[in-house]
Amino acid sequence: MHASRQPIGVFDSGIGGLTVVQALIHELPAESIVYFGDTARVPYGTKSKSTIVKFSLENVEFLLRFGVKCIVIACNTASSWALPTLRKYFKVPIIGVIRPGAMAAVRQTRTKRIGVIGTTATIRSGAYEAAIHRIDPSAKVISQECPLFVPLVEEGWLTGSICRAIAQAYLEPLTRQRIDTLILGCTHYPLLAPAIQQVLGRDVALVDSAQQTAAEVRGVLTAADAFAQPNGHPRYRFFVTDEPAHFNRVGHRLLTQMTGSVERVSLRGWP
Amino acid sequence: MHASRQPIGVFDSGIGGLTVVQALIHELPAESIVYFGDTARVPYGTKSKSTIVKFSLENVEFLLRFGVKCIVIACNTASSWALPTLRKYFKVPIIGVIRPGAMAAVRQTRTKRIGVIGTTATIRSGAYEAAIHRIDPSAKVISQECPLFVPLVEEGWLTGSICRAIAQAYLEPLTRQRIDTLILGCTHYPLLAPAIQQVLGRDVALVDSAQQTAAEVRGVLTAADAFAQPNGHPRYRFFVTDEPAHFNRVGHRLLTQMTGSVERVSLRGWP
Repeated sequence: MHASRQPIGVFDSGIGGLTVVQALIHELPAESIVYFGDTARVPYGTKSKSTIVKFSLENVEFLLRFGVKCIVIACNTASSWALPTLRKYFKVPIIGVIRPGAMAAVRQTRTKRIGVIGTTATIRSGAYEAAIHRIDPSAKVISQECPLFVPLVEEGWLTGSICRAIAQAYLEPLTRQRIDTLILGCTHYPLLAPAIQQVLGRDVALVDSAQQTAAEVRGVLTAADAFAQPNGHPRYRFFVTDEPAHFNRVGHRLLTQMTGSVERVSLRGWP
Repeated sequence: MHASRQPIGVFDSGIGGLTVVQALIHELPAESIVYFGDTARVPYGTKSKSTIVKFSLENVEFLLRFGVKCIVIACNTASSWALPTLRKYFKVPIIGVIRPGAMAAVRQTRTKRIGVIGTTATIRSGAYEAAIHRIDPSAKVISQECPLFVPLVEEGWLTGSICRAIAQAYLEPLTRQRIDTLILGCTHYPLLAPAIQQVLGRDVALVDSAQQTAAEVRGVLTAADAFAQPNGHPRYRFFVTDEPAHFNRVGHRLLTQMTGSVERVSLRGWP
């Protein structure tokens, strides 16, 4: 199979990575995509590095069955901890969301005071800070883990006094540090953007990495001369490890063009 | 090996089941215990029935390697969805926490208006309602899922305005229904008991199933004549699927006598 006809593989700990798929479809509308969401083992952000690496290795192995020409890690936590190991084991090009997010933030900031919010695992990895400093060693990075944000989004409390109070508790340290740019370092967080913006004020720019990640995928396909034919009828396939019902119900909120099948798979299952 | 020397097996989706171990040690101090916490795949309460059943089957298989004489499902969610299947597949006596919790509540209530709070999966299973009605068909049961309570406990926000506001949001429907007894249908919730009591008022009794579950285990051992010798030096072993660091750190809060090794195991691991 020539690379041009191979799909792009995307994996995430769950459903949030569909925002990255949305950006990919916008940037590369001719490309087919295979999405894998590990909904039976979600979340990754509360777990240890070795578990996140192990799950990510299994997810890549699954995507390779489809002959993907490159793999996008849509999950910030898996990008933070697993990317170096994945690149060591596999030859297929693998793109995480950390460097793209860091790049977008460095471009955006004027005061060089950048905030980063994410899951406990993402923040403790220090991956964003390292990525920003590789681009601009003089930038000041202020990080904050926000473990209640993902459950809050999943509860659907995106506005109201409880949402505002939690946002305030997490974000006030960043306000005190006078950041002018904030990286939304988790695919769930864009849904909280209005509440976050309200706490931080209008002068702080919110950055999410989906758009920049899609641009990097374009770069990888350019380098490999592996673009799909423009008239090739792209195909979208979605695989999850828990029952697809929730994914089907919520997926449309994150990915408006969500067409194609959603199938359940077992990585290493009970017989 | 005579049954008297075999350990009791306990499994939970994570760390919360240690409160049930605490009750078991109090009730049956001569018994050895093997605990399994599925910390790599926690939580179960947001997942579907079939995934919860699959994980529970794997957890029981793991405990059976230790020749356990009975198994306690410390997790409310796994008890709600998986108990009938587990009893169909395995001969070892298996005790869940739902029936004991229902029994304790029916004994406690005077007005026969019983509230139940739990994870999404536990509440949607209807297991508590069914168990209560098997004991007293005339009882009125009012159920409420509280998906933010577990993350709240894990964030450590057990008091303060955010904790109070979330408790209020979830519990007000129960107050309006004038319950006089509330089942804390998740092993994490006893840590929120002060906040819950403050919202409900002092006249509502809080019931958690650990004590009653331990009493039922005593009943199983009596029926099988399988008690350990009183002078037998009980041994406690703990196994988890994620790194043990968090378990070691937080475990002592839930189980004061937490002595013994904590080991990491892989159920079906890479590679």
